[in-house]
Amino acid sequence: MENKMDFDVAIIGGGPAGLAAAVYAARGGMKTVIFEKALVGGQITTTADVENYPGFEDNMSGFDIADKMRMQAEKFGTEIKQENIKSIKLDHLNKLVETDSNKYNVKSVILATGANPRKLGVQGEAKYTGRGVSYCATCDGALYRDKTVAVVGGGDSAVEEAIFLTKFAKKVYIIHRRDELRAVKLIRQRAFENDKIEIIWDSIVKEVKGGDFIEKVELYNKKTKEISELELDGIFIYVGIIPNNELVKSVVDLDEQGFILTDETMGTKIPGLYAAGDVVHKVLRQVVTAASDGATAAFSAEKWTEENKDKF
Amino acid sequence: MENKMDFDVAIIGGGPAGLAAAVYAARGGMKTVIFEKALVGGQITTTADVENYPGFEDNMSGFDIADKMRMQAEKFGTEIKQENIKSIKLDHLNKLVETDSNKYNVKSVILATGANPRKLGVQGEAKYTGRGVSYCATCDGALYRDKTVAVVGGGDSAVEEAIFLTKFAKKVYIIHRRDELRAVKLIRQRAFENDKIEIIWDSIVKEVKGGDFIEKVELYNKKTKEISELELDGIFIYVGIIPNNELVKSVVDLDEQGFILTDETMGTKIPGLYAAGDVVHKVLRQVVTAASDGATAAFSAEKWTEENKDKF
Repeated sequence: MENKMDFDVAIIGGGPAGLAAAVYAARGGMKTVIFEKALVGGQITTTADVENYPGFEDNMSGFDIADKMRMQAEKFGTEIKQENIKSIKLDHLNKLVETDSNKYNVKSVILATGANPRKLGVQGEAKYTGRGVSYCATCDGALYRDKTVAVVGGGDSAVEEAIFLTKFAKKVYIIHRRDELRAVKLIRQRAFENDKIEIIWDSIVKEVKGGDFIEKVELYNKKTKEISELELDGIFIYVGIIPNNELVKSVVDLDEQGFILTDETMGTKIPGLYAAGDVVHKVLRQVVTAASDGATAAFSAEKWTEENKDKF
Repeated sequence: MENKMDFDVAIIGGGPAGLAAAVYAARGGMKTVIFEKALVGGQITTTADVENYPGFEDNMSGFDIADKMRMQAEKFGTEIKQENIKSIKLDHLNKLVETDSNKYNVKSVILATGANPRKLGVQGEAKYTGRGVSYCATCDGALYRDKTVAVVGGGDSAVEEAIFLTKFAKKVYIIHRRDELRAVKLIRQRAFENDKIEIIWDSIVKEVKGGDFIEKVELYNKKTKEISELELDGIFIYVGIIPNNELVKSVVDLDEQGFILTDETMGTKIPGLYAAGDVVHKVLRQVVTAASDGATAAFSAEKWTEENKDKF
């Protein structure tokens, strides 16, 4: 009683998680499609040098790493469709992916739609991204040895990353719009005790300025109404991260910030729906953790479709 | 009240999990050491072609992938010590790693000691490993398109992987020493229904034979006492996997098979002790999942040592 199925697995999102899922799914004998509305590669394509993806001991651009993963996925037969998904129907054995131009019946779905750091939305921010503006201290902190940097934000992540950055930078400002940090006491205390950290209270970044690279930011003090400039070699923006969960947020379990909760198979509570990469709840969002999620999700999707083979 | 600490983190094991942990730990500013008693690289070094590590679209040998990870870890300052660990003392803030020749005080430990597939222990098995004898269908199954292969074993993994192999191979034997499969009913049923699968009951492999590559195995039927030969292009051995948990098995939580149970930070119930790679409980044991574990463990160890900075 096999229905007409267009694909064994539809992977939504063509970043490292989706591409790694495709490598495993396609190589594992599944008819595999990736839907990516923009450029294949995801967020990582904007990173000039990726120093920490294990196995690339010569730095490689994020674009090149993603491109290699794309070639690898295609080598095993993955189709890549540049179509925007309008909706996914996730009935147990009749999943339907609807794009702006087509409909596809698929057996299983891997959601790898990623997440985006919340932007400040100020002038110069986009221009200097990758040239002094960063959203990831784990990725870029080591590039700022003996430099002066700032972190924008006051939550746990912002303050933890500021402390982390003191291992490299000679001076770390925390620019915070309020007069107290939201971070938990232990972390706050660490920041206060750290000689390299200076907190600039009640202030917001109005503009990022520089030449080819960032040189300074313009600050506005909300209490005194004063405008000032701060010279910097880099600025790390930690004002939140937004998971791209729109397609499934009403049907899966989410954590407080909206990241998808998965079990150890990368499965969700919907049978045959898996999630992988930055969109899922986890400790560390990096290319290697995304790729690992994708591989596990594909492995699990393959087992699930095989177990339910007769029912499609 | 800082004691003399030799390293911020000691990583036990130099396979992909340990090497990736070192890349993240050393790049994250930790004084990092890897202890590896044998060759750096671990199990993967015996794999001729790794097709599915995301980002290497041209096949690369396991040895070369591991070697690139080693160079990357060393680039960021990791020390690699070829010393055999005798014991680890895991007191909260006074961890002591004792090797055959030295003692080291360390703040945190990442256990990445791996696991080994249980061998049959028969003649020809070692000689043909990587030349027709495999312990991983996910890794090598795709290389056996339209070939004849066998799986040895009768548990869930053995039978699941036999079913998986029917996607590629034209014929899959299951060689099992008993007269019934241990695998759960659903999986057993799938195997019985699959036309490509033939089960050889009550039989054990006595020898693996061939030229440069495997050609056949000698079988012994325990009931009839008959000896026979079976022509094959490949054989997958699924008779168990043994986690290398000796150093910590009395102090951490283990699953039924002896794999270490970790939380999402890759932490164990001992503060400052993390585990990563094949030695931990998880769904899929691959280079990419090991590397991901290692990165997460290093990230978590860095946060933990920073939080406890004053106490060392």
